[in-house]
Amino acid sequence: MQQPTIDLDMPQQLTLYLHKLSPYSHRIELALAEANVKYKAHQVDLFNKPTWFAAKVNPIGKVPAITYGGPDVDPTEPSSLSFKLAESNVILQFVAELYPESGLLPKDPVERAKVLFFMDTVDRHFDKPGNEWMYGRTESYEGYLKGVEMIQGLLSESGEFAVGDRYTIADACIAPLLSRLKITYETDIGAFPVGQGTKLGGELKAPKYAKFMKYAQAMLERQSLRDTNDEAYLADTWKTLITERRV
Amino acid sequence: MQQPTIDLDMPQQLTLYLHKLSPYSHRIELALAEANVKYKAHQVDLFNKPTWFAAKVNPIGKVPAITYGGPDVDPTEPSSLSFKLAESNVILQFVAELYPESGLLPKDPVERAKVLFFMDTVDRHFDKPGNEWMYGRTESYEGYLKGVEMIQGLLSESGEFAVGDRYTIADACIAPLLSRLKITYETDIGAFPVGQGTKLGGELKAPKYAKFMKYAQAMLERQSLRDTNDEAYLADTWKTLITERRV
Ligand SMILES: N[C@@H](CCC(=O)N[C@@H](CS)C(=O)NCC(=O)O)C(=O)O
Ligand SMILES: N[C@@H](CCC(=O)N[C@@H](CS)C(=O)NCC(=O)O)C(=O)O
Repeated sequence: MQQPTIDLDMPQQLTLYLHKLSPYSHRIELALAEANVKYKAHQVDLFNKPTWFAAKVNPIGKVPAITYGGPDVDPTEPSSLSFKLAESNVILQFVAELYPESGLLPKDPVERAKVLFFMDTVDRHFDKPGNEWMYGRTESYEGYLKGVEMIQGLLSESGEFAVGDRYTIADACIAPLLSRLKITYETDIGAFPVGQGTKLGGELKAPKYAKFMKYAQAMLERQSLRDTNDEAYLADTWKTLITERRV
Repeated sequence: MQQPTIDLDMPQQLTLYLHKLSPYSHRIELALAEANVKYKAHQVDLFNKPTWFAAKVNPIGKVPAITYGGPDVDPTEPSSLSFKLAESNVILQFVAELYPESGLLPKDPVERAKVLFFMDTVDRHFDKPGNEWMYGRTESYEGYLKGVEMIQGLLSESGEFAVGDRYTIADACIAPLLSRLKITYETDIGAFPVGQGTKLGGELKAPKYAKFMKYAQAMLERQSLRDTNDEAYLADTWKTLITERRV
């Protein structure tokens, strides 16, 4: 579809299509909270998707997606005059660039590259093996643990943030996955054999992973995360959705 | 590894580690040519990888990777004082931001987001299914053709460039894949059943794909592509490497 051009000198509406189960939409909730942006949130029923969503917002039918600009319409009747964007990491960068004063993306090209490389590593080497294990497509969490090591190796020296000395979209990218990782090893919910989740939790207590775990803890304590996280809901829903796939 | 910070107000060395077979390193060659940047190119022997490459440049051992800044050393003896970066799409953006006068990435956030979304779509929906078919992991090129349609739907109105009215890193991202697609359907080299490559070429001649094919042709005629492309070498090497995997 041909996309409109939006006048950025005017204040523009922003609508986020999300689902509370989706860590990828959670990323955008975090970035928008950190940037202190007013927006409309619309929960898309992923189990019974309304036809207008793929037709008018995201052709591949996934959340997150946003509309930006155009008239201030009801989220269920998206305007052809708004700009549509999907893919969480692309949206994260868009949000950071729309609101540069948020500091969500550093100005220096080298520092920016570190943030973007961190995000790429999260998807490729942490989220992907994590999902394969969680959904029972592989029996071992070795790949996931390797991802933990890679992420740990990239963390800023102090280990307080992913990159540099402030919160960036690199943190927003990984935080929802850290919140889900914690649920996994605390509740043992997942399609893996019984006990593997708890076992992973035990392994992560080794001094070897201390920097990663300290960082994860800091991310979970962050206000933006606490305001957007619902551990009990996630655990309850996963129990029904995933446990039946146990291998 | 902890990464150094580089003073961007000084002219800095840039070294690209590449391999002529790799479409992902080709992306960076194109962007650097388009930005008119002087750099050192070092071909990494992927079939017999030198140990210093993973140890000192890219821990996962893949090309492309770059070093930026630090002393002007021999590429086989990378300095710990240079910034190291991997993942072609991350490097593309880094190059575009280092050399903003290249116009490789628009300034406007909406236009930038279109470029980055195009690149994401290339990797997820065009390169991935294309590789699966080329390497015999799936028997049908239907997924690949769907990717062609998605890319076509994103092309700028004139169809001359991926986004907007000038060459961006979105074009540099897809051009190497277009050059390889042409070889595939002209030579029928691939791990798919004999004749499928040529058959795909026939299908792509349908009016339905005209905009995509015209864009692909324009990309192949671009000077930066012609200066960095070696069709005969690619076809010869593929013949040996891939054809033996025919399904
Ligand atoms: N790569 C995408 C992944 C988005 C994604 O997988 N979303 C899921 C929810 S977690 C979804 O919408 N699934 C519904 C569907 O595929 O129909 C991103 O990062 O935004
Ligand atoms: N996602 C990476 C892919 C890089 C990649 O797969 N490079 C291949 C050559 S095409 C490579 O270096 N392979 C050597 C290896 O994996 O050992 C990128 O976009 O840079």
